[in-house]
Amino acid sequence: VHKQTNSTTSHNHTHCSIDTQTYTKLLDQKKMSLDKNLLSKLAVGDKHGEDSPYFDGWKAYDNNPFHPQRNPQGVIQMGLAENQLCSDLIKEWIKANPHASICTAEGVDGFSDIAVFQDYHGLKQFRQAIAAFMERARGGRVRFEEERVVMSGGATGANETLMFCLADRGDAFLVPTPYYAAFDRDLSWRTGVRIIPVECNSSNNFQVTKQALESAYLNAQETGIKIKGLILANPSNPLGTSLDRETLQTLMDFINDKQIHLVCDEIYAATVFAEPRFISVAEMIQEMDHVNRDLIHIVYSLSKDMGLPGFRVGVVYSYNDAVVTCARRMSSFGLVSSQTQSFLAAMLSDQIFVDNFLKEVSKRVAKRHLIFTEGLKEMGVSCLTSNAGLFVLMDLRQMLKDQTFESEMSLWRIIINKVKINISPGSSFHCSEPGWFRVCFANMDEDTLQTALQRMKHFVLRHRENKKRKSFQENLKLSFSSMTYDEHVRTPTLMSPHSPLVRT
Amino acid sequence: VHKQTNSTTSHNHTHCSIDTQTYTKLLDQKKMSLDKNLLSKLAVGDKHGEDSPYFDGWKAYDNNPFHPQRNPQGVIQMGLAENQLCSDLIKEWIKANPHASICTAEGVDGFSDIAVFQDYHGLKQFRQAIAAFMERARGGRVRFEEERVVMSGGATGANETLMFCLADRGDAFLVPTPYYAAFDRDLSWRTGVRIIPVECNSSNNFQVTKQALESAYLNAQETGIKIKGLILANPSNPLGTSLDRETLQTLMDFINDKQIHLVCDEIYAATVFAEPRFISVAEMIQEMDHVNRDLIHIVYSLSKDMGLPGFRVGVVYSYNDAVVTCARRMSSFGLVSSQTQSFLAAMLSDQIFVDNFLKEVSKRVAKRHLIFTEGLKEMGVSCLTSNAGLFVLMDLRQMLKDQTFESEMSLWRIIINKVKINISPGSSFHCSEPGWFRVCFANMDEDTLQTALQRMKHFVLRHRENKKRKSFQENLKLSFSSMTYDEHVRTPTLMSPHSPLVRT
Repeated sequence: VHKQTNSTTSHNHTHCSIDTQTYTKLLDQKKMSLDKNLLSKLAVGDKHGEDSPYFDGWKAYDNNPFHPQRNPQGVIQMGLAENQLCSDLIKEWIKANPHASICTAEGVDGFSDIAVFQDYHGLKQFRQAIAAFMERARGGRVRFEEERVVMSGGATGANETLMFCLADRGDAFLVPTPYYAAFDRDLSWRTGVRIIPVECNSSNNFQVTKQALESAYLNAQETGIKIKGLILANPSNPLGTSLDRETLQTLMDFINDKQIHLVCDEIYAATVFAEPRFISVAEMIQEMDHVNRDLIHIVYSLSKDMGLPGFRVGVVYSYNDAVVTCARRMSSFGLVSSQTQSFLAAMLSDQIFVDNFLKEVSKRVAKRHLIFTEGLKEMGVSCLTSNAGLFVLMDLRQMLKDQTFESEMSLWRIIINKVKINISPGSSFHCSEPGWFRVCFANMDEDTLQTALQRMKHFVLRHRENKKRKSFQENLKLSFSSMTYDEHVRTPTLMSPHSPLVRT
Repeated sequence: VHKQTNSTTSHNHTHCSIDTQTYTKLLDQKKMSLDKNLLSKLAVGDKHGEDSPYFDGWKAYDNNPFHPQRNPQGVIQMGLAENQLCSDLIKEWIKANPHASICTAEGVDGFSDIAVFQDYHGLKQFRQAIAAFMERARGGRVRFEEERVVMSGGATGANETLMFCLADRGDAFLVPTPYYAAFDRDLSWRTGVRIIPVECNSSNNFQVTKQALESAYLNAQETGIKIKGLILANPSNPLGTSLDRETLQTLMDFINDKQIHLVCDEIYAATVFAEPRFISVAEMIQEMDHVNRDLIHIVYSLSKDMGLPGFRVGVVYSYNDAVVTCARRMSSFGLVSSQTQSFLAAMLSDQIFVDNFLKEVSKRVAKRHLIFTEGLKEMGVSCLTSNAGLFVLMDLRQMLKDQTFESEMSLWRIIINKVKINISPGSSFHCSEPGWFRVCFANMDEDTLQTALQRMKHFVLRHRENKKRKSFQENLKLSFSSMTYDEHVRTPTLMSPHSPLVRT
């Protein structure tokens, strides 16, 4: 017996070593097919949407982040829509209000009650403060009822929650393009709700038209897809524009005629720095009595307007009672930390602070926007005219080899790998025209912004000279031949370098 | 024209007033059918699970909460599994460590970086502190890798996330009974994953047997349901017991034989106050090399062991790389506030504090458990012998009119409405035997606990006397006839009185 065992082992070993490659391949295939059955379709599929230049750019930044002293040749992150211009005001407020936190000597008496607070309605003073802040962020022209404020894990969670409330798997929502790169995951990934893009283009500054809506609606109907509503980001990411009154009226009449939902993502409501002023759907329904309020839902967040994305404060505000009830039940999956609720309740209840903060946001973002767009203008680069947001949509159509998305990607790779700036190509926002890039300008200090402008200028001027000499593409090929895109983007591991699923 | 308009109006009005009732009914029906199509099946269905005595009891408490001075006749809340016995230790730590919070003068320098931090991996120091805490909470007998710590919105979010990762809609998980009242929502509601109860009973102290598992598995297979795994709460809510080594071995061999998942909900890992000591699945896999680690997943939380349910810290810890990656992607829907992450990172990194805290939890819960069970014993009421948790499973089978769940509900209604104690009937935990009630003892001060014991004693003794006189049921009927259950439980409104979707 002993001998035979040995012999078997030996035989197997021989067999193994002969066909190692084939054997390993078969084993891998077996393992993979096992894994595919082991996990959910969600887990083995790619609908999470992370395989996109939008997120690849973040990884390139994370692998080689710019620092003025420590890494002056690193990648500058301009793919992150964060407002880092106003945190000094919050820090001042914190120093002046030590009682506002349950983790200070002055506020710790409130610790026990807050730490165990897990009611999904949220702290009453938090709901009230959020409702009041939402009003101030819309110029005080509308009223929000605290009873309708439903917490959510950021706008990410709020958008998903609304989809779970409004649509069944396979149902669809219309979304004008270009739209936020992570909508596919936030709205569709786990809910199974489809996004039907409504194509907009630069001929009218990417404004959505009734014709485009009707056409998308009709097409969907013809293929048997049930359209449950329309999703608007107003102000828009990545356009940086807000909808005018007439367009809003048209869109609201459209959804009211069809009796489908309107989800308004207004997370940049207070990040508006120029005329025309922002008009919320909350303002419009006051004027449009005939619109069925049960169809209207607002997504809000403190990530952009307050610059607090880490605090994960998302809000579903619905005029539909059943949606409020259902969304609140779902909010248990993404409640805001009670520590954060109680701190924000105190800070946002300070109306003098809030009014000053919102004024400063507008002023500082305006200034930053001006510096950046003027800098681009000097080098002959223009942007879509915008009045809102923490970014501009930069027009590099003239720099494309040809007007295709392949050329857009080629240009993007050069910019991230050679110019060392991470910006986001329009394709990642489902833009219908190649050559547009979203560039964020508020997540860095002014010196870094100037460095980015210098890099851009150097690149643009060189590109223009090369073009003049009609040999640019050839030169480019030569000078960048040793630097391919792939070597700069790490393959995913257990710890991918940066988290992509955020609202930026 | 003017006249005709008037006439039409008048006609309609007349028509209306004649058939008002019918008309309103038709309108309501129309509205309802519209609503049913307007919202998702989730929103109009009742799978949220809130319609249960488990939550109705909370509402009864919220409508009339006990307070020693202000409302001494109010309902005492014993339906909430919260540890309020140790928050003084955290408060002391806060006073001694003002730098730990970003919302203090001492810690505010870290504010800007933390406030914008939204990486879904979480702060490295937070992950490390959580991994270390999970080790301490298991007596230091196991190691956890910080790379596998995935954040989630409480255990509520962690459980749902795992279902999304492991199973498709219609697939099922086996869950031994009795099980946590909100599992149906956490695991099933939005995921569409089914729960197949595995019946356990008091004959062997509700221990799950291989036979029961095999039988449930076979039944499911025969009806074409795909079983993707087994969910264990260890220590168990509502049993208050932890699994012994032999049972764990049996269960792990079972899932390994079938190559299905094992999800271990260990949120009470450190809330163990008596022998036998708690054995984590993490400990078992060190001994059981043959078990496929890709099948093993742990759910953890700071809500119970640290008494911080408001902070919404849930953890998915999986030994399967693909699940770690997928769960982390999903964690964007329920990230922990970065304010809370940074505070907890500091506090849980203080190993002297942590070790003392965990020792005190065990000591104080043990003392509280003893006081309560001794009090019950004095009045002749026994409980399932337990070594863990913030509750006991109280045996009131002898007080049932007959051994049915209807009698259990009758008794429960008397206890909540007359004795004015909110406890949870076994039926809300899918208990297979009537007469068991879960009673929480750590969410109140000792005086309140004594008041509750007095009320119970009065009730039990009176019940016993009445029973002796063989006329108890009749008397009960008379004395409580004016007090029906329904009048004490408010119907749901936009603001239901209390949030039910929490981990208690």
